[in-house]
Amino acid sequence: MRKIAVLGYGTVGSGVVAVLDKSRKEVARKLGDQVEVQAVLDLRDFPNDPIQEKIVHDFQAILDNPEIEVVAEVMGGLHPAFEYTSQALAAGKHVVTSNKELVEAKGAELAEIARAHGVSFLFEASVGGGIPILRTINTALIQEEIYRITGILNGTTNYILELMENAGASFEEALADAQARGYAERNPEADIEGFDASRKIAILGSMISGKHVGFKDVPTRGISQVTIEDIEAALAMNGRIKLIASCQKEDDQFYASVEPMFVPGENMLASVNSVYNAVMLKSSMLVDTLYYGKGAGKLATASAVVADILAALNGNGIYEMNVWSGEKKVPENPAVRPNRYLIRCEGPEVNEVLLEEVIHCGAGWTAMTLEITQEQLQAVTDKINQQAKVCSVFRKIEE
Amino acid sequence: MRKIAVLGYGTVGSGVVAVLDKSRKEVARKLGDQVEVQAVLDLRDFPNDPIQEKIVHDFQAILDNPEIEVVAEVMGGLHPAFEYTSQALAAGKHVVTSNKELVEAKGAELAEIARAHGVSFLFEASVGGGIPILRTINTALIQEEIYRITGILNGTTNYILELMENAGASFEEALADAQARGYAERNPEADIEGFDASRKIAILGSMISGKHVGFKDVPTRGISQVTIEDIEAALAMNGRIKLIASCQKEDDQFYASVEPMFVPGENMLASVNSVYNAVMLKSSMLVDTLYYGKGAGKLATASAVVADILAALNGNGIYEMNVWSGEKKVPENPAVRPNRYLIRCEGPEVNEVLLEEVIHCGAGWTAMTLEITQEQLQAVTDKINQQAKVCSVFRKIEE
Repeated sequence: MRKIAVLGYGTVGSGVVAVLDKSRKEVARKLGDQVEVQAVLDLRDFPNDPIQEKIVHDFQAILDNPEIEVVAEVMGGLHPAFEYTSQALAAGKHVVTSNKELVEAKGAELAEIARAHGVSFLFEASVGGGIPILRTINTALIQEEIYRITGILNGTTNYILELMENAGASFEEALADAQARGYAERNPEADIEGFDASRKIAILGSMISGKHVGFKDVPTRGISQVTIEDIEAALAMNGRIKLIASCQKEDDQFYASVEPMFVPGENMLASVNSVYNAVMLKSSMLVDTLYYGKGAGKLATASAVVADILAALNGNGIYEMNVWSGEKKVPENPAVRPNRYLIRCEGPEVNEVLLEEVIHCGAGWTAMTLEITQEQLQAVTDKINQQAKVCSVFRKIEE
Repeated sequence: MRKIAVLGYGTVGSGVVAVLDKSRKEVARKLGDQVEVQAVLDLRDFPNDPIQEKIVHDFQAILDNPEIEVVAEVMGGLHPAFEYTSQALAAGKHVVTSNKELVEAKGAELAEIARAHGVSFLFEASVGGGIPILRTINTALIQEEIYRITGILNGTTNYILELMENAGASFEEALADAQARGYAERNPEADIEGFDASRKIAILGSMISGKHVGFKDVPTRGISQVTIEDIEAALAMNGRIKLIASCQKEDDQFYASVEPMFVPGENMLASVNSVYNAVMLKSSMLVDTLYYGKGAGKLATASAVVADILAALNGNGIYEMNVWSGEKKVPENPAVRPNRYLIRCEGPEVNEVLLEEVIHCGAGWTAMTLEITQEQLQAVTDKINQQAKVCSVFRKIEE
């Protein structure tokens, strides 16, 4: 019998307990042993739930129990998650977490404590829980050099943009719908303004760069300024507006951003619907691979946590673990490189050699530029604004 | 220094040697040791290649070398691949292979020999080399129950169908183009008639059913009868014709097939282009996940073989390994269950209550049925054939 503890009996914590119970047979077959939840830390009591007999209110009870091999930190927030995690690792216990805030801010330090104590610190569920992307990168793609990661990493915003397209809804209407369905929080800022996605791409960027990428250093723009006219302009150009998180290594440079981008219809990312997420990798030998699944959700997140628990228990967690240095890596904005841009305008059409394609759209027109620098983009928009009006500019996804 | 041997210095074998060389740094970092190719078995000599100093002509030299821990079987064909593999496993060496013929026919027996000798038998590269699907199923998805696998598993046929759509080409023209580009063999039957895909879905089916699924028992239909009119009919219904391989567990039944199917445009599989492949899983907690990448190609296949070599060397291969019983599992044809069908017809439109949607298309018309049984399908086509002519029928993909 292998014993674990769960910190937090909220949505994810109760999901982890449920998943372990539901997959008892599969787990026993693979691990050659049962996994028992020995203790669940929570401030609350759950008198009507069988879990009550496992509830503890004091972390020390878990820390001091030598039988507990793995701690699943699913409380969220930075403190005391950081303190509990570092203490557990230093006590020789593996820690698995779904807490992107913890991983983004403290991942380097915690992985180093884990490494020094011969245990693992795993966090699949912190980045797109329903897509086993971290495990894939750390086991199947060891021999690959990953140059670029491009993804739809936030289900809330993907749902909203899709609803705007399908229903011709405004951003505000679509947000209200998402909130009514529980796909967006009452205070939706973290999702809408792109910070959820930038935390996740910061973690992925740290993994591929080997240094600490802070989410606050990732140029981030959310979807609150995207209009239905923008979406129609993209459709007119045979594509979609998607909130794209990306990071890229090129020569000695490192780039990252979160922004609404124009994604051509033939690109797999254009087909990612509803609350689903997807991560596209460009790597040395496989070239393009894409991984698609639920970004969030109780069972999806819990499933990822359980996969980490099993990897920790079978000993593979230590091998898989991705450790990056605490040295800061500040990404450049990809816009400093030449890019193509979708420009939506009102007023008379303007001729301009840097506009490769111009089409009428609704009450105005939209154009796709050639590959141009930021300076050229400024010159083009200035020229258009002399005779007409630039309403929106979206960078086109790199392919 | 960890030592391995490669059997066969053809496209894949030379790719494996090249990938190990190219990813020397990544491998050393992860494994904590170098990996050296100690011997390469081939009947030929390669006097102008540095590999010549590793070339051996006798398998015994590899079998008897206690330093060699892993054998990469990349020769292809059933014999002597089967003999070499079973001998190597029985001698306590891990074996990794790209040989789907070997795995489909002998996988149960070989995995059992591996298990009995405490070594691993891994075959990521035998099923869609550029998509780490087996490793994902065996490590990230242990806790999931996988109900259904649906995939585009053959790049040759996917390329041909896409070219027919993009260029308005006939099947024969598109096949000739694929052959000219090296995407199809001179004798293209295994790809065109669906047998490559059925071998792969047989392996996947064995993995999820726990019993041996033989590819000859998988109802298989290739693309040689698909016409440009069929493709246009699908487009008119906002979808595509794709060669789909699927297997499914439902209640106590097990289904599998390979056939050209109608895939609605919103389905992620409709967006899989060119020679790329994709595997979509339906599982208990993640619900839908999709994995997309190159199905074949020297570097993609070699990358998968190297990932298996590393898993074997780090000890995780034994844990990952998926062993199915030699007991035969004969799949049912999914058509025995109710399905929806795309029916392309010529002549006058026929009214029929089981046809949910009918649209003009080219010189004829096309219809989408409600969900109907095989008997109902027969009745519908009989009725149409009294007044008009049924040209093609395609089952609609299950979602």
